Amino acid sequence: MKIKDLEIVKRQQLKEKPSEGVPFGTTFTDHMFIMEYEEGRGWHDARITPYSPLTLDPAAMIFHYGQTIFEGLKAYRTEDDRILLFRPEKNFERLNLSGERLSIPPVDEERVLEYLKTLIELEKDWVPSTPGHSLYIRPFIIATEPNLAVSPSKTYRMMILLSPVGPYFPGGLKPVTIHVEQEFTRAVKGGTGMAKTAGNYSSGYQAQAGAKKAGNADVLWLDGIEKRYIEEVGSMNIFFKINGEVVTPALSGSILKGVTRMSIIEVLKSWGIPVTERRIAIDELYDLYEKGHVEEAFGTGTAAVISPVGELNWGDKKMVFNDHNIGELSQKLYDTITGIQTGRRPDEFNWTVEVK
Amino acid sequence: MKIKDLEIVKRQQLKEKPSEGVPFGTTFTDHMFIMEYEEGRGWHDARITPYSPLTLDPAAMIFHYGQTIFEGLKAYRTEDDRILLFRPEKNFERLNLSGERLSIPPVDEERVLEYLKTLIELEKDWVPSTPGHSLYIRPFIIATEPNLAVSPSKTYRMMILLSPVGPYFPGGLKPVTIHVEQEFTRAVKGGTGMAKTAGNYSSGYQAQAGAKKAGNADVLWLDGIEKRYIEEVGSMNIFFKINGEVVTPALSGSILKGVTRMSIIEVLKSWGIPVTERRIAIDELYDLYEKGHVEEAFGTGTAAVISPVGELNWGDKKMVFNDHNIGELSQKLYDTITGIQTGRRPDEFNWTVEVK
Repeated sequence: MKIKDLEIVKRQQLKEKPSEGVPFGTTFTDHMFIMEYEEGRGWHDARITPYSPLTLDPAAMIFHYGQTIFEGLKAYRTEDDRILLFRPEKNFERLNLSGERLSIPPVDEERVLEYLKTLIELEKDWVPSTPGHSLYIRPFIIATEPNLAVSPSKTYRMMILLSPVGPYFPGGLKPVTIHVEQEFTRAVKGGTGMAKTAGNYSSGYQAQAGAKKAGNADVLWLDGIEKRYIEEVGSMNIFFKINGEVVTPALSGSILKGVTRMSIIEVLKSWGIPVTERRIAIDELYDLYEKGHVEEAFGTGTAAVISPVGELNWGDKKMVFNDHNIGELSQKLYDTITGIQTGRRPDEFNWTVEVK
Repeated sequence: MKIKDLEIVKRQQLKEKPSEGVPFGTTFTDHMFIMEYEEGRGWHDARITPYSPLTLDPAAMIFHYGQTIFEGLKAYRTEDDRILLFRPEKNFERLNLSGERLSIPPVDEERVLEYLKTLIELEKDWVPSTPGHSLYIRPFIIATEPNLAVSPSKTYRMMILLSPVGPYFPGGLKPVTIHVEQEFTRAVKGGTGMAKTAGNYSSGYQAQAGAKKAGNADVLWLDGIEKRYIEEVGSMNIFFKINGEVVTPALSGSILKGVTRMSIIEVLKSWGIPVTERRIAIDELYDLYEKGHVEEAFGTGTAAVISPVGELNWGDKKMVFNDHNIGELSQKLYDTITGIQTGRRPDEFNWTVEVK
């Protein structure tokens, strides 16, 4: 696809690139992508501009009724200096799925991917070459109509921000301790849990603060109805290796359809390792754990790729997986996925998209 | 309380006041209130400025993780030209309750009420004198730190906007038809349903669009767990008059603690009418309806005060209340509450606060 309708305004004086070790999500590149939507006119005025503040009416609907969706993906620099995206079409597909739930008009997925590629090409010097580093990509859409009526906005803005980031675990993969949340709920069937929308995230802060106070890195969310079935860990999907079989919660309507999650499932299948998407009750997991059947546990997401879980605290019960060490399969999955993402391994699934 | 730390910057050229009949929430007064929060420093820099656009970094946390809360209340002009607020301390109390759930630092409730009174005094010519009209007040707090980490912001902004509004039902109280929502969920125990936070509102748009398409004005939300117990109607609390007794859903943790709701309960008690806060199943309501026991149904909220429900559509079952007419009690409650709010009736509960 050739992009003809994209205006590009370049910054005169480029920023200094940050040194390594800046915290996640705090440094942004020189430029950003913007596009506007107006009812009756559709998406228009796509442009790349210098990274700059956003000016909105204080009555803009995003501030009052939370009509907004976002995505998160990364660009990686290969050893031979190419720039790769990892299944970006899946992110824009999910952006539109989220948009449907939040009554936000869909974007043209292919076109937006071309816009993103143009932006990254312009910012290619920002894609880090240090191993484990990458360029985090944050597309998002916000409702901009200045109106306090509780109804969908007639205008929207889409933006894409780019932020160079270091490794999630600077010292290498490290199993974390997780609190099984029994009081607070992340999402429920019929709600917005399957959508990547802002309100799903801040609603978890109170539980996360409680978990951290008690020495845990994050929370494991249970379903909102029975408070029994495992859903997600922090803002990642979760997997368990049980008796040689890999199990992950089925997409129930309240779980995010992770791109890393689906990739892990496909990789496991290609290796002939049995993988099942099903309901897993926390009491079933504990039972299996007590019998010595739970071999590994790990979260999956764009930020960490694989985040091994070393310990689960469920009320006064504790489960320790693989003696707080990284499981063999967790490590192999991490190496495989990051290998494909960074071009160190052959992309046999045809998942990467090169930015030229 | 004397306010000493409030800076006031007045607009040079005042706006023209709108003619009557402008849509709700689209016209704003000349000035607005702003206050900033910074970790370690607390709330500071309270000021009244000309109403003007907000400038934020596109990475500001409000756009990504929905950490925000708001309130809604009104100022009324009395026939003898005084300006009254209705139980404003309850709104700022609830703002802090919402803030606790969303990990937003509390404001000094008394001080903020003084700021609001100062703002309204400055904008007193904007408080409409036409019966049924009022000045809608929208306090809100947004997370402003530019950071894509999923964690509470270190900086916040509080603002108060003022908007002159007409009557909710321009032709007088009118019973509406409501769809009982069985697919989508507004909130669940352990979630954010009891907090006035942005994400709770846009998450209802899809259900509301479906309901409207089928000829309903709004939806009645059932609990997220059993999809059986009545919670709220649209963004209002709900009441039923059953066999002479008034029943409203108990505050379960997923229902907003409405200021109009609590006022209705107190008025009913003062009249000696039995009023009960309890769980009400939709099937129980239908059963009572079939037996001819349900006399009236109405929603309550700041915008409409009382919104009579003429018809409930629950799957293929239909309940018609009071033959689509306004119930006697609904009308009496409406007249009483609006009478107190506008100074037409004696304020025997000491609910109004005069802006001088």
